[in-house]
Amino acid sequence: MDLIEKMTSSELIFDGKVVHLYRDTVELPDGASAIREIVKHIGAVCVVPLTDDGDVILERQYRYAVGQILTEIPAGKLDYPGEDWTEAALRELREETGAIPRDLYDLGDFYGSPAIMGERIRMFLARGLTFSERHLDEDEFLDVVRMPLGEAVTAVMNGEIPDGKTQCAILRAARMIDEKRI
Amino acid sequence: MDLIEKMTSSELIFDGKVVHLYRDTVELPDGASAIREIVKHIGAVCVVPLTDDGDVILERQYRYAVGQILTEIPAGKLDYPGEDWTEAALRELREETGAIPRDLYDLGDFYGSPAIMGERIRMFLARGLTFSERHLDEDEFLDVVRMPLGEAVTAVMNGEIPDGKTQCAILRAARMIDEKRI
Repeated sequence: MDLIEKMTSSELIFDGKVVHLYRDTVELPDGASAIREIVKHIGAVCVVPLTDDGDVILERQYRYAVGQILTEIPAGKLDYPGEDWTEAALRELREETGAIPRDLYDLGDFYGSPAIMGERIRMFLARGLTFSERHLDEDEFLDVVRMPLGEAVTAVMNGEIPDGKTQCAILRAARMIDEKRI
Repeated sequence: MDLIEKMTSSELIFDGKVVHLYRDTVELPDGASAIREIVKHIGAVCVVPLTDDGDVILERQYRYAVGQILTEIPAGKLDYPGEDWTEAALRELREETGAIPRDLYDLGDFYGSPAIMGERIRMFLARGLTFSERHLDEDEFLDVVRMPLGEAVTAVMNGEIPDGKTQCAILRAARMIDEKRI
């Protein structure tokens, strides 16, 4: 089946600091038209930082959009469109945890809500960590916590880590190591 | 550390069919104020449908927001706020694939982009499937494909399934079965 939807008109509804909302009209595969409300986003990275002791470094922070304190791996937006994913990952990891990795493994892309949001997140696993000082953004407030990778997997399986990218990246990192892919 | 952000004002920017965008002002833990651009969403469900032959039923559909055809598990929005997650999961599974499960296991919550979006997705695993006719929504165009669960896990690990909820739910379902939790 031809599945592609073609844009016939596009209206910028809100051009915010993070959210760029469009209301587009598209032509469906059968020729009918439909409205697509979509959020464009610059893109982001997230990193599973694994210490030599086998601990994952996690962050607890309040997420206003969901009204909860969530446990997440370090993550952040790209600084500019097209920024190198690896550079962004190294920067965010260092800023939020102070960690500098010897090895950075690509865990692939993550689309958190592809029906309405363009945000693409590239996931990484970082090993061989050394530590310097962390430098949080002005409006970032977070607690750093550590737990063994196996405990983090169990926490994911028990529903204690509802953040999508964190579940996904931890399960993929654990399976990569279990399968001796790295 | 106190991490909570308190809303001091809220402005509805766009009240769409799916996207409800707010620009709120919050008080940060240190007393400073910040802007939060957030998208409210009614909530959604997704289901890993596993046949008696061990195949996962997947869908290929065009996602306009990311400009790609993605491979995903069946999913859909709640019909109304507070709808029972299980009822919604059974409905979406049946509408999109025709499948009716004997057993439905809760795989927990998934927040796809908690920095800006309130969307909460409840994930499920469905087994013991029998099949009736499917009934797609008017503007839904999708191809249904099947593959063994092990192949789906490999596809996730190889980066061929970038949809976040699908990666997460498949990895959790496979691990639940491997660990004989069900």
